[in-house]
Amino acid sequence: MQVKVRDVAFFVGGELSGDGSRTVNNLNGAKEAGPNDLAFILDERFEDLIDRSNAACLIIPKNLRGSYKNTVIRVDDPVAAYSKIIEFAMPNRVPHPKGIHSTAVIAKGAKLGRGIALGAYVVIEEGADIGNDTIIYPFCYVGRKTRIGSKCVLYPNVTIRESISIGDRVIIHAGSVIGSDGFGYFQDKNGIQIKIPQIGTIMIEDDVEIGACVTIDRARFDKTIIGKGSKIDNLVQIAHNVVIGPNCIIAAQSGIAGSSELGKNVFLGGQVGVSDHVKLGDFVKVGAQTGISKSFPANTILFGYPAKPIEKAKDTIAAIGLLPKLFERVRALEAKIKELESR
Amino acid sequence: MQVKVRDVAFFVGGELSGDGSRTVNNLNGAKEAGPNDLAFILDERFEDLIDRSNAACLIIPKNLRGSYKNTVIRVDDPVAAYSKIIEFAMPNRVPHPKGIHSTAVIAKGAKLGRGIALGAYVVIEEGADIGNDTIIYPFCYVGRKTRIGSKCVLYPNVTIRESISIGDRVIIHAGSVIGSDGFGYFQDKNGIQIKIPQIGTIMIEDDVEIGACVTIDRARFDKTIIGKGSKIDNLVQIAHNVVIGPNCIIAAQSGIAGSSELGKNVFLGGQVGVSDHVKLGDFVKVGAQTGISKSFPANTILFGYPAKPIEKAKDTIAAIGLLPKLFERVRALEAKIKELESR
Amino acid sequence: MQVKVRDVAFFVGGELSGDGSRTVNNLNGAKEAGPNDLAFILDERFEDLIDRSNAACLIIPKNLRGSYKNTVIRVDDPVAAYSKIIEFAMPNRVPHPKGIHSTAVIAKGAKLGRGIALGAYVVIEEGADIGNDTIIYPFCYVGRKTRIGSKCVLYPNVTIRESISIGDRVIIHAGSVIGSDGFGYFQDKNGIQIKIPQIGTIMIEDDVEIGACVTIDRARFDKTIIGKGSKIDNLVQIAHNVVIGPNCIIAAQSGIAGSSELGKNVFLGGQVGVSDHVKLGDFVKVGAQTGISKSFPANTILFGYPAKPIEKAKDTIAAIGLLPKLFERVRALEAKIKELESR
Repeated sequence: MQVKVRDVAFFVGGELSGDGSRTVNNLNGAKEAGPNDLAFILDERFEDLIDRSNAACLIIPKNLRGSYKNTVIRVDDPVAAYSKIIEFAMPNRVPHPKGIHSTAVIAKGAKLGRGIALGAYVVIEEGADIGNDTIIYPFCYVGRKTRIGSKCVLYPNVTIRESISIGDRVIIHAGSVIGSDGFGYFQDKNGIQIKIPQIGTIMIEDDVEIGACVTIDRARFDKTIIGKGSKIDNLVQIAHNVVIGPNCIIAAQSGIAGSSELGKNVFLGGQVGVSDHVKLGDFVKVGAQTGISKSFPANTILFGYPAKPIEKAKDTIAAIGLLPKLFERVRALEAKIKELESR
Repeated sequence: MQVKVRDVAFFVGGELSGDGSRTVNNLNGAKEAGPNDLAFILDERFEDLIDRSNAACLIIPKNLRGSYKNTVIRVDDPVAAYSKIIEFAMPNRVPHPKGIHSTAVIAKGAKLGRGIALGAYVVIEEGADIGNDTIIYPFCYVGRKTRIGSKCVLYPNVTIRESISIGDRVIIHAGSVIGSDGFGYFQDKNGIQIKIPQIGTIMIEDDVEIGACVTIDRARFDKTIIGKGSKIDNLVQIAHNVVIGPNCIIAAQSGIAGSSELGKNVFLGGQVGVSDHVKLGDFVKVGAQTGISKSFPANTILFGYPAKPIEKAKDTIAAIGLLPKLFERVRALEAKIKELESR
Repeated sequence: MQVKVRDVAFFVGGELSGDGSRTVNNLNGAKEAGPNDLAFILDERFEDLIDRSNAACLIIPKNLRGSYKNTVIRVDDPVAAYSKIIEFAMPNRVPHPKGIHSTAVIAKGAKLGRGIALGAYVVIEEGADIGNDTIIYPFCYVGRKTRIGSKCVLYPNVTIRESISIGDRVIIHAGSVIGSDGFGYFQDKNGIQIKIPQIGTIMIEDDVEIGACVTIDRARFDKTIIGKGSKIDNLVQIAHNVVIGPNCIIAAQSGIAGSSELGKNVFLGGQVGVSDHVKLGDFVKVGAQTGISKSFPANTILFGYPAKPIEKAKDTIAAIGLLPKLFERVRALEAKIKELESR
């Protein structure tokens, strides 16, 4: 599909600057773009790419006011413009499986809504209940009495164990495991670990997205909860009885230990660790690789190992950087004192 | 099932304090419990929850001697009491698959014991040998000549490659991979990485439990070993030729590099890293996110990055916290010296 | 197969010292070896094992010139000798599946080359294209329009989503996910996370090896790239739009955030984190658990959190170790100053 740049500008409600008669037929990164590509500059950090790009046209944020050789469209929010264009240009870009494959194994008592797609080699156990228009890829396992809402997508090789509850419009990427046993043992007098039965469940609320190879453990008793609209990246570990509030963002390879609680709109960077029985208030933001072993109130920004509020963490890092000089200064003082004493 | 609180006290051999005529029909966390729930207080850290809980009755440790408004049962070990109640109340709470599903693909030479359950779409390769009463969920793969003992449970989507040896009563959670190639290459003169064949195997001893999405690599030659009764949490990496002693606890997202050895009853917190060719003695305990690059003797408690014995690590962290003040003190000293010099 | 030690020496082009008439019939680690085993000493760190080993013979590097009780064969490169012996002794040690299993589900438009093996319960979607002699184990999913080259091996439970491009001789271990959506959202005014469509793809070049339970996300647009001959260990996360150069080594549980770039022959130790939009030059080496939040030029050796060039990082660690003494020195200075002032 060939589209004129001036039509793109009209469609996204942007301000065109340059040659509106050029045509685009693809989207691309600013660096990789060729002469028929539409590219995007998300913020000022990438301003220098605008004139180095070979794109036919770039969509840029309104606050970049330079005069550029390349044709640009200024918009309030380049990401929103990007999503709008995608939805328009590729309404069905990934055709999901349709219908129920003849090899799907569906237990007798299972309830299936309307418009469901089950790929080849899906297994649905007794008493499972799956809502309308949910799409399940090959090699997914849905355990007994598990309830999945409507318009969900489960990518291949996902395991959902028994008695789990999943809301509407939930996306679960390939290889993830929902409902494995929580990790709990007690030691007898001989040092042998005895398994504590894990008889709780998990509630995943509406609009949650879960990455690939994520593990979410069922509660010891009661529920592990993932709040409405929260997004979890690949290889994240959520332990038993964790409660995650709505609209949280948890980046890849982070881990949250048993019974910890996150408020709403909490952000965890990559590889963050949160100890057990910790509470993080609403809007807490945590830098990558931070290790959190105690609770922090709402709106705190955390960094470091062990975690500190960002200003304190930065002071500490700066002080550590100046340590070699501090040693020199102390050495100089010692020499001077010696001299003063010998006067 | 309605049970009188005084009967619960008798069953667990505890000391009742309060109204023994109340009835319970469910277990729950102390915080979440309602008026028909039995709840548990594991230790003194949660004492304040005893009277804030709405539970009908709480099981608490003997050393909590306060006088509480709520009905309590004092026991030596609340976790043991909990497990005893679970086993009694729900002897078959999760009905595992039974029998051999018609879609299971079993190679000719494979040996199956009595009472085995193979779920839909299980693949058992030639020469595999599976002991009595072992349960294998859908989409599990058991490679050639692999031996699995009796009374094991393999949850869905588990891959066990060829020539692996697994003991009795081993539990492996969904998505785990046992027997992938160890990670070993050597560089030729042009910087190209040449794969070193990984021809060893893995021995997993009796009573081991392995979490979800765990990866355990086969040895280069010889064996990777997971000792009797050790418990491994989700997303843990065990590299080639690692030897883990009996009764170890390895929390989520920890990684142990090639040829390292853990003694017995070693505890690793979450996201711990252990370098290659390191030895940790019996009963070593390691705090979360610790990075270990050298060996430590038995009974050491380790923390930090790089790892130090806990007292040293705490001193270091405290000293770092006082650094900004130290800078001030040195500045003050410098000023005073200047003054003294100018006298 | 019994082989005389003198024949082994001839085969690997090594220099024999000791009894060449002994026979070996197995390979083993130096520590575990018995009297019919051939063992290997990789470098001088393990020299003390040479005479403590019960092996019939040890292959050792040429620079170890001691006079040993045990029979040794000195070679330029013990690892190369090891691989040569393996390839000779066990040319077909792991018989991969052969032929196309009757349960493989192959969509109509899919193209299969010659000599392909598809195990039981493999699913190949429409428009997929698989090269000659590629081996695909059970429960692998190959999405629409995905292209896989020749002589690849996909172990069980691997998910490769739509429109991915994979070169020749690529090995992907069990449970890995190639092509999951990149992790990208933008917040609306109410704090709700809106998913940014991820319409890019992934290019995995020739001779790449990918470990177990690795996750590689597709690009937002454009491509995520894994360069020719690079090797990725278990449980690694590669985010959207990452570009990895040729011949890199990425150890287990490392994570690389969105749009970061690695040059050629970059080495990342285990559990390393690389932030988004970072560039690491050719031959950069990064120690385990390092956290990298900015770019570094070619040949840098990095360590620590936050990452510093190794010499600086070591100075910092040493300085931190001396902190308690520094506090004492400052205290002593303060006392002396007080005394001087009171003179």
